[in-house]
Amino acid sequence: MRLDDLYSQLTISTGAKLVLVVLDGVGDVATPEQGGLTPLEAAQTPNLDQLAQVSALGRMIPVAPGITPGSGPGHLALFGYDPIEYQVGRGVIEALGLGVDLQPGDVCARANFATLDDKGIVTDRRAGRIPTETCERLCARLQERIQQLGDTRVIIRPGKEHRFVVVFRGPDLEGPLTDADPNREGLPIPRAEPRDPQNPRQQKMAKLVAEFYQAALPLLAGEKPANGFLMRGIAHQPHIPQFEERYRLRAAALAVYPMYKGLAQLVGMTKLEGPQTVREQFERYLAEYDRYDFFFIHHKATDKAGEDGNFEAKKRAIEELDAALPVLLQKKPDVLAITGDHSTPCVVRGHSWHPQPVLLHSRYSGTDKRARFTEHDANHGSLGLFEARFLLRLMQAHARMFDKFGA
Amino acid sequence: MRLDDLYSQLTISTGAKLVLVVLDGVGDVATPEQGGLTPLEAAQTPNLDQLAQVSALGRMIPVAPGITPGSGPGHLALFGYDPIEYQVGRGVIEALGLGVDLQPGDVCARANFATLDDKGIVTDRRAGRIPTETCERLCARLQERIQQLGDTRVIIRPGKEHRFVVVFRGPDLEGPLTDADPNREGLPIPRAEPRDPQNPRQQKMAKLVAEFYQAALPLLAGEKPANGFLMRGIAHQPHIPQFEERYRLRAAALAVYPMYKGLAQLVGMTKLEGPQTVREQFERYLAEYDRYDFFFIHHKATDKAGEDGNFEAKKRAIEELDAALPVLLQKKPDVLAITGDHSTPCVVRGHSWHPQPVLLHSRYSGTDKRARFTEHDANHGSLGLFEARFLLRLMQAHARMFDKFGA
Repeated sequence: MRLDDLYSQLTISTGAKLVLVVLDGVGDVATPEQGGLTPLEAAQTPNLDQLAQVSALGRMIPVAPGITPGSGPGHLALFGYDPIEYQVGRGVIEALGLGVDLQPGDVCARANFATLDDKGIVTDRRAGRIPTETCERLCARLQERIQQLGDTRVIIRPGKEHRFVVVFRGPDLEGPLTDADPNREGLPIPRAEPRDPQNPRQQKMAKLVAEFYQAALPLLAGEKPANGFLMRGIAHQPHIPQFEERYRLRAAALAVYPMYKGLAQLVGMTKLEGPQTVREQFERYLAEYDRYDFFFIHHKATDKAGEDGNFEAKKRAIEELDAALPVLLQKKPDVLAITGDHSTPCVVRGHSWHPQPVLLHSRYSGTDKRARFTEHDANHGSLGLFEARFLLRLMQAHARMFDKFGA
Repeated sequence: MRLDDLYSQLTISTGAKLVLVVLDGVGDVATPEQGGLTPLEAAQTPNLDQLAQVSALGRMIPVAPGITPGSGPGHLALFGYDPIEYQVGRGVIEALGLGVDLQPGDVCARANFATLDDKGIVTDRRAGRIPTETCERLCARLQERIQQLGDTRVIIRPGKEHRFVVVFRGPDLEGPLTDADPNREGLPIPRAEPRDPQNPRQQKMAKLVAEFYQAALPLLAGEKPANGFLMRGIAHQPHIPQFEERYRLRAAALAVYPMYKGLAQLVGMTKLEGPQTVREQFERYLAEYDRYDFFFIHHKATDKAGEDGNFEAKKRAIEELDAALPVLLQKKPDVLAITGDHSTPCVVRGHSWHPQPVLLHSRYSGTDKRARFTEHDANHGSLGLFEARFLLRLMQAHARMFDKFGA
């Protein structure tokens, strides 16, 4: 019996309110360069401290030991999905990140402009990192001339610098395909081929990509340096069991950045637009309290500071959350979890594999007798070290949403 | 390779003595309502404290994160079986609970008396919760008239109030069937059908249940309010690898309540009858020391107190165990584990999903430098947080019962 099936079988609706606050990349490591403290340890967090003293603490492995997740797997795990079972192609993530309203069955590709010589050999895979405005102008031109290929709609959306995405929306399409990218200069663009040569939907998709190249390359012929493009991560939006059906929770997402809105939308959460700061997000939670059972609230600044290796900025991003926390607690949810989707240690200047700390508060969480919410305190918590995909199940348990298993 | 097969392959007999003491539902949470202490923390336990100081500590997930086990899955895990793989039907658990000496292949049903109107519609699913004496009288009447249906023996055993069990013992029987229970008033009793319509043993079983109804209903026709009955959880005793063969340990069970005796019997332990208190159980252990290698000693009072939300009673139940502990230690086993089958926090007033604390003592356990056996101390132990089904394997390891794996 699959464990997810057991959880589903035991699930009951209770009307409880659950809130998941994600401080993106909050986890860190205490290194000598930083005075032996993590940003969570260095930050002034009176409100988090008070909450930690009546909560259960622990640390979570985002995917598997040693694996550094991107935002996609990191959030899928927090939403209770096994990120290895439910893999979302890079094209889909990029499209979500650019705010494309994806539909089930859409096939997406990450693309970027490149420079070709007169024999079609790739001489610069990033077309000299053309300015974003050029990218936007070229995408607009492509979109104007290529709206449809046979029965399939084509959606082209520019990203930053040389990057863009192409979405194919039509019947009987499927990924994944191999990349239309030689992965180094000095070679021609290879044809995107079905990963499974017997799969007729992948065959159809490969034909569409070839047709897209045939239509698009002539439109770029006069450009310099962006007279070509590469396509990678060509895959369809996977079927993901939808949140409300899976957990019996009406879920809303309060996120500022498109990618996190997109990931929430992928699992069927309702996007609540508007709030720009964490305080505004908490205020909006208060306003929407009665309409949803589950709130995903995403705070990006911690991750950005970690990516920049900016210890002070990461500390301030945590303090900003702490200062706003009393707003959230005006309507204290039945179950509140505060954590990250992964660690982004300043010393790494990027996502990492270090287990992120987690705080879980409910009437049934008890206290772990720890003074603060830090990595060190979390090491001593009753939740121990566990896989992030179980956090949502623990939240359900604390909401009394599971029947007893067996007599 | 299945992990269980690896364990079996490595297992050797050493003649070591292993003791598993189960304080049913001992785990708890420290809540403000209880002064921030758990019953283990509040209890005076000088003997447990002394033992904890030279033991390894940890916490165990009874089934999977967030899942609250019944006594069946809780104990199967402690006995080293994956409780999701080895699921025991409610009928089997109830029959064990009422002390029926089940045999492999027996199909059991939970039943309860109900009230039917003159069209056979269920008007009260519990027949007004008739007194236990009435239930006993009606069960005796049914058993007297219905002893056999074709080649199958029928065993009827009364429970409390309106509850009873029916056991079918005959060739080629199998469950599970659907319930002969409309699950609400206002509907007739549905026929119990095979869960797998192609399974001939389930078909035979469904026919037997129908025949049982045909024979039994007329015997209740004149009764008021108990003129009918419902049957649920109709399933056979699953095949469970027997304890001695699986672990190379001759095992004995010292339990007072029938359900725990029954669960021990299900895996092939010998039931040692007689002792009523934990002190008497420990004395009996001393007397039987040479005849068995493994002793399962079950102390119920902690769970009952937790179910009642009675903090003081739970504390006293722990102190009762502590006071008797020196008796057990007169013949110190080679490996001693003290734990619960799950938590029954006073604040929950029922079983819960919170990992239970565990203490493991042997010549090889070392010390975790913790002063006491409490949930909080267990959070800091060397055993970490692990699945309860591995405790028995750890006990075997501490008994030096596993050969080295690989060169």
